[in-house]
Amino acid sequence: MSESTQPARGTRDFLPDDIRRRQHVIAVIRDVYERYGFEPLETPAFENIETLLGKYGEEGNKLIFKILKRGEHEHTGAADLALRYDLTVPLARVVAQYQNALPRFFKRYQIQPVWRADRPARGRFREFYQCDLDAIGSTSAIVEAEILAAVSDILLRLGFDDFSIRVNHRLILSGLLNVAGIPAALHNDALVALDKLDKIGRDGVAREFAERGVSGDAVSKCLGFFEVPDGELPAATLDRLDAIVGHGDGSVENLRQIVALADGTSAAGRVRIDLSLARGLSYYTGAIMEITVAQLAGSLGGGGRYDNLVGMFLGREVPACGFSLGLERIIVVMTERQMFPPAVAGSAVDIMVTLWNENARADAVRLAADLRRGGLRVDVYPDADKLGKQFKYAGSRGVPFVAIVGDDERARGEVAVKDMRSGGQTAVPRADAAAFVRDRVRDGKATTERTEHTEPGTLEPRT
Amino acid sequence: MSESTQPARGTRDFLPDDIRRRQHVIAVIRDVYERYGFEPLETPAFENIETLLGKYGEEGNKLIFKILKRGEHEHTGAADLALRYDLTVPLARVVAQYQNALPRFFKRYQIQPVWRADRPARGRFREFYQCDLDAIGSTSAIVEAEILAAVSDILLRLGFDDFSIRVNHRLILSGLLNVAGIPAALHNDALVALDKLDKIGRDGVAREFAERGVSGDAVSKCLGFFEVPDGELPAATLDRLDAIVGHGDGSVENLRQIVALADGTSAAGRVRIDLSLARGLSYYTGAIMEITVAQLAGSLGGGGRYDNLVGMFLGREVPACGFSLGLERIIVVMTERQMFPPAVAGSAVDIMVTLWNENARADAVRLAADLRRGGLRVDVYPDADKLGKQFKYAGSRGVPFVAIVGDDERARGEVAVKDMRSGGQTAVPRADAAAFVRDRVRDGKATTERTEHTEPGTLEPRT
Repeated sequence: MSESTQPARGTRDFLPDDIRRRQHVIAVIRDVYERYGFEPLETPAFENIETLLGKYGEEGNKLIFKILKRGEHEHTGAADLALRYDLTVPLARVVAQYQNALPRFFKRYQIQPVWRADRPARGRFREFYQCDLDAIGSTSAIVEAEILAAVSDILLRLGFDDFSIRVNHRLILSGLLNVAGIPAALHNDALVALDKLDKIGRDGVAREFAERGVSGDAVSKCLGFFEVPDGELPAATLDRLDAIVGHGDGSVENLRQIVALADGTSAAGRVRIDLSLARGLSYYTGAIMEITVAQLAGSLGGGGRYDNLVGMFLGREVPACGFSLGLERIIVVMTERQMFPPAVAGSAVDIMVTLWNENARADAVRLAADLRRGGLRVDVYPDADKLGKQFKYAGSRGVPFVAIVGDDERARGEVAVKDMRSGGQTAVPRADAAAFVRDRVRDGKATTERTEHTEPGTLEPRT
Repeated sequence: MSESTQPARGTRDFLPDDIRRRQHVIAVIRDVYERYGFEPLETPAFENIETLLGKYGEEGNKLIFKILKRGEHEHTGAADLALRYDLTVPLARVVAQYQNALPRFFKRYQIQPVWRADRPARGRFREFYQCDLDAIGSTSAIVEAEILAAVSDILLRLGFDDFSIRVNHRLILSGLLNVAGIPAALHNDALVALDKLDKIGRDGVAREFAERGVSGDAVSKCLGFFEVPDGELPAATLDRLDAIVGHGDGSVENLRQIVALADGTSAAGRVRIDLSLARGLSYYTGAIMEITVAQLAGSLGGGGRYDNLVGMFLGREVPACGFSLGLERIIVVMTERQMFPPAVAGSAVDIMVTLWNENARADAVRLAADLRRGGLRVDVYPDADKLGKQFKYAGSRGVPFVAIVGDDERARGEVAVKDMRSGGQTAVPRADAAAFVRDRVRDGKATTERTEHTEPGTLEPRT
């Protein structure tokens, strides 16, 4: 009793309603990822510590949870294992380990928790899920376009109608910085500052640039480039860019292809070029992208092309492009906006079988078995008790129907089915009881299973 | 390159085919658990170390993975967190923490990995999944009967037809040991020895008893009780027990009720009383049960009633009964016996869109989007290349159909659909292409999604 019963700091217990929301979102993400030909991969929670250390920079190293050696080595305080910090380094390890078994174009998704010893804050946890998809092995612009399409499909199916996906290109950014006269050695610093334009504004960025010794002239030139006029179509922005940075490295043409290809998918009209988008991670080498939702600071996910990272365990370059959806943030926003279908938070049970008296137990269990065979989710009240108390319990749990089999019903081969919403009670032949309830829970309170999975053959939720 | 790319010792990477097998089994388990009114719960991978230490005995303590403190405390070598060792202690913590928010009868399932620093061996891993269901808050025999039924439903749906569920009762065991003249202080030792009857035989058990000072007479009396004659029906065994241990503690009557109630469910004919079943864990207080499959040593899962454990964080007794299915072992056996439906190991993709030339890219992406809207899982070959090479790639991945849109097809608004199994090619109007392929993949190679989830309203896989 004196012991704390809290989960560890920065972690959460997920009670049934939480899990149903999470499963709803994950089922949509998984289904869409699979429609795009991505295959599931899972890796262990912990890796050999050498696999992770040194892969995330000085700051990242500090945030890795390390596991103490065991047995006689425990007293040394040394660690030999560490918890997964992201899903990208494990992917790189897997690509190296199984290179001969994997297809030439390896498209994988991975939906698993990662752990970071960050200071917990609102919406920031020490255990959180990442939903990554990555396409390995091709430099084609089709890869980026399909990722944009997949992400759009997911957001549309979850009910987001006010999102856009901002795109930019690392090489275009370098080109613009060059033209603005910022020396290559300062590019990374400049990008870090630039990435905060949303938060700290033009003046803030100018100040950060100045602190790093970039001339005022370069700053305003640079910021001038980065501002895309409101309502300018991607094609116009790209034409402008052609004039500024030229065709040398093919980056403008690459972005043009990506935007054009995405136009034939559900991402049409959602993609907008934002030249100030930099994305913090220094490993991107090509297109970068990030989801923006109206009236929402921060992003629901982001990604880009990173041709040098996956091959790190192989010692050679392997083209790759990926995207990571932030499950925790998607759930927070959907909850705040009440975007979950009512059924997701609905009862876990379609019908509860009541128990008249101890002698009726065998019959109650048998009825429950019949109803389950009929596809229903069925609870049996475990102890004989006053019916009123059993109804109250069913009501408190939101159970829509209750089954009563008294002596009369049993004699007639019937079940009395009580609709807890209307209070009405109907005598139904026992053999028809499952169908009777099934028709009615489908009308109103559908089960989780029914809303999570769409009918094969249609992308739209069944009507 | 010099770095190891192996997963950490005792852990496994799950490549796409592995995941599909795991998802197939987990989907069945989850669906059945939910039909029985159990609700999903998830807890964090790590707990505060005090929550776990001292809960699993001396041996268990040694197998707990401990997480090093972070930051300035790291050098002390102290641990403040530990990886989940099972799903039962976290459940007990959750029941204490959220007691007011949980229903009076809390039925939860939890399917998550646990970690134990065991010496890895064939079939024994340091990271493995448990699939637990537990019903908290009732002492009714209905609870045990429903658990037996749920487990039977799962095994039947997975395709096991040669299983039985052995049941026994902790209080009957104590009663038999008493009658055999074994002092209460030696009961635990006796049960540990007894639990190995399968492995070490009568002589081995007798030897272990003797080592602990139990008289030869008590041993043979005891073993005599424990042997249930081949083919003896549960009712006969129970009558025999009535005569030996009497009615004092109600244990024989409790087991009789459980067996009778289970008889009205899919567990009918599967339940057999095995008086030698002891189950190692000392926390059981009532009925105990274990799945046995013909010609298979060991068990696919087990459980029982444990009325003193869940309340440990509350300081009061809370009735509880649970069962844990061993996912890893189920998968090993199903793989060895080739029990997975062909579709589970099938292609991740229904159709691959080929790419004639770079100019056809936009059209290929658009066609893929159309086919996905039609419910198919679609891959696009990312680079224009020789068609033969693209066919070969599709073949190597087991993709059943390939779409080709040459200039002629485009002019006629058609798609050429090539059946990779027969080699036949059919020109189909573009608008009908998705339905054309859908009909054909359903005939033969169904998608994972289609086999994993049954039609709402039927327990049987759709035909």
